[in-house]
Amino acid sequence: MQRYFYNEMLANEQFVLPKDIYKHAITVMRMRVGDKFELVTPDKQVQLMEVTAVDKQQSRAKVIETFSHQTELPVVTTIACGLSKGDKAELIVQKGTELGADRFIFFKGDFSVAKWDDKKQAKKIARLEKIALAAAEQSHRTTIPTISYCNSLKELKLATDESGIVAYEEAAKQGEKANLVKVIEQLTAHQAPHLTAVFGPEGGLSTNEIEILMQEGFIQAGLGPRIMRAETAPLYLLATLSYALELVK
Amino acid sequence: MQRYFYNEMLANEQFVLPKDIYKHAITVMRMRVGDKFELVTPDKQVQLMEVTAVDKQQSRAKVIETFSHQTELPVVTTIACGLSKGDKAELIVQKGTELGADRFIFFKGDFSVAKWDDKKQAKKIARLEKIALAAAEQSHRTTIPTISYCNSLKELKLATDESGIVAYEEAAKQGEKANLVKVIEQLTAHQAPHLTAVFGPEGGLSTNEIEILMQEGFIQAGLGPRIMRAETAPLYLLATLSYALELVK
Repeated sequence: MQRYFYNEMLANEQFVLPKDIYKHAITVMRMRVGDKFELVTPDKQVQLMEVTAVDKQQSRAKVIETFSHQTELPVVTTIACGLSKGDKAELIVQKGTELGADRFIFFKGDFSVAKWDDKKQAKKIARLEKIALAAAEQSHRTTIPTISYCNSLKELKLATDESGIVAYEEAAKQGEKANLVKVIEQLTAHQAPHLTAVFGPEGGLSTNEIEILMQEGFIQAGLGPRIMRAETAPLYLLATLSYALELVK
Repeated sequence: MQRYFYNEMLANEQFVLPKDIYKHAITVMRMRVGDKFELVTPDKQVQLMEVTAVDKQQSRAKVIETFSHQTELPVVTTIACGLSKGDKAELIVQKGTELGADRFIFFKGDFSVAKWDDKKQAKKIARLEKIALAAAEQSHRTTIPTISYCNSLKELKLATDESGIVAYEEAAKQGEKANLVKVIEQLTAHQAPHLTAVFGPEGGLSTNEIEILMQEGFIQAGLGPRIMRAETAPLYLLATLSYALELVK
C-alpha cells in the first residue's frame, strides 16, 4: 500500500490532497475513486484513506480506519558519518532509513576529501531530506529521519544516558568484538534508549578524532573481521540493532 | 595494506607480478622497491610481499611472511536474488562481498521486469565477478565470491544439511520474527554450516515461488518490521549473520 507523510493532524474526515501527494497519488500512481492509500500524521498514527473524488485540479479522500503499527527501531539511532566522495551520503540515507535510523549527521572529517560549503550544504541537505522521505514512505515507517551537517566532529555530543560508539578500523583489525554486543545489551536495559554511532569517511578517522570521541564517552567497537567501505558500516550496525532488539529480544 | 588474489600457489620466493597486479600495484598505486602488499593464494593463506624490482615491463616481489587471518563468515552463505532493474545486482555483489557472502545467484523471478538473455548473461556475470574481486580485496577477504545465473528459482536446491531461508514481505507484515533467530541457532550447531537465502526481485516473490521454495525446505523468515528494498534485505541478513556468529558467539 502506498504511504505518504502529512505534517498536520487531519481536521476532519474529508482530506484534500496537498499538491505533492496529489501529484504522486493521482498523476503518477493514477489512483481513482475507491483506491486506498495510507497517511501518516504527526502523532505517528497511520490513517487508511480512500479516494472519494478526483478532478484535474484537486482530489479528496476520507479516513476509513486509523491504526498504529510499530515499525520504528526500539532505539533512537543517530548515524554520524564523515563526508565521503560521490553519492555515498545518498546511499547511507536511503538504506539507513529503510533500516530504521532516526537522524543522520554528516561531518567534515580530518581525512574527508569532500566538503560541503555553505551554499552546497543547503542543497545537499534538501536532496538528502527528499531521499529520506521517499525511503520512509517506501519502508512503511512512521518517522522521517532528519539530516544535518556539522563542520567538526567536536560538535557531536552525547546526551545524558545516550550510548555512543565509534566504528574504528584499527579496533576491528585488532579483533575487538565484545563492545558492540555490550553496548546493545546496555540499550536493552533502558526505557527509551538512544544511540549515536560514528563512522569515518573513506580515509577513516584520525587518531585525534578518536581521542575527541573517547573523551566524549564514545566506545570503540569492531564490526566483524572484514574491512567495510565507509557507506557499508552504518548499514551493518543498523541491521544488527534490528536483529538484536526486534527479532532476538 | 593493498591486497591481491593470485590463483596459483607460489612456486618459489621470487614472484613475478602478473599483468593485472602489475598494472594496479605499479602503475596505479605507484609501488616502488621496498613497498609491501598482500597476496592471497588458493590455500587462503596471506603472503606479505615486498617489491624487489620494478622496471617498465615487469616487477618482482618476494615473500616476507605467510599468515592466515580468519576474515570469512563462519557459515558458507549463498545469496540468491531475483533480478531487479538497474544496477541493483552490482550493489548487492559489492556490499554483499564486503559483508561476507560466498556465492551470489541471480534468477529470473515471476515478477522480475529485467532479464538477462544469453548474450547479456556472460557480460553481466563477468562485470559482477570483477566487482566481487575488487570488494574481496578491499575488505581483506581470502575468498572471492562466485556469481551465477539461473533461469528459474526451481533450479535452487538445498544440499543435505544446508539451511534455507526466504525473505518474504508477507511474513514480515504478519510480524513473523522467530524464524531467522531459529535458523541462526541451528547454524551454530553445525560443524560446517551452509545457508542459502532467497530474496525476491523488486516486485517480490509470487505465491507459486514461495510454494516451490517451501517444498524444497526453505523457511520463510521476517527481517524486521520495515519493508526493505530488494537490494537492502540481503545486506541485512549478512550483517545479522556476522553479528550473531562472529561477535555474539
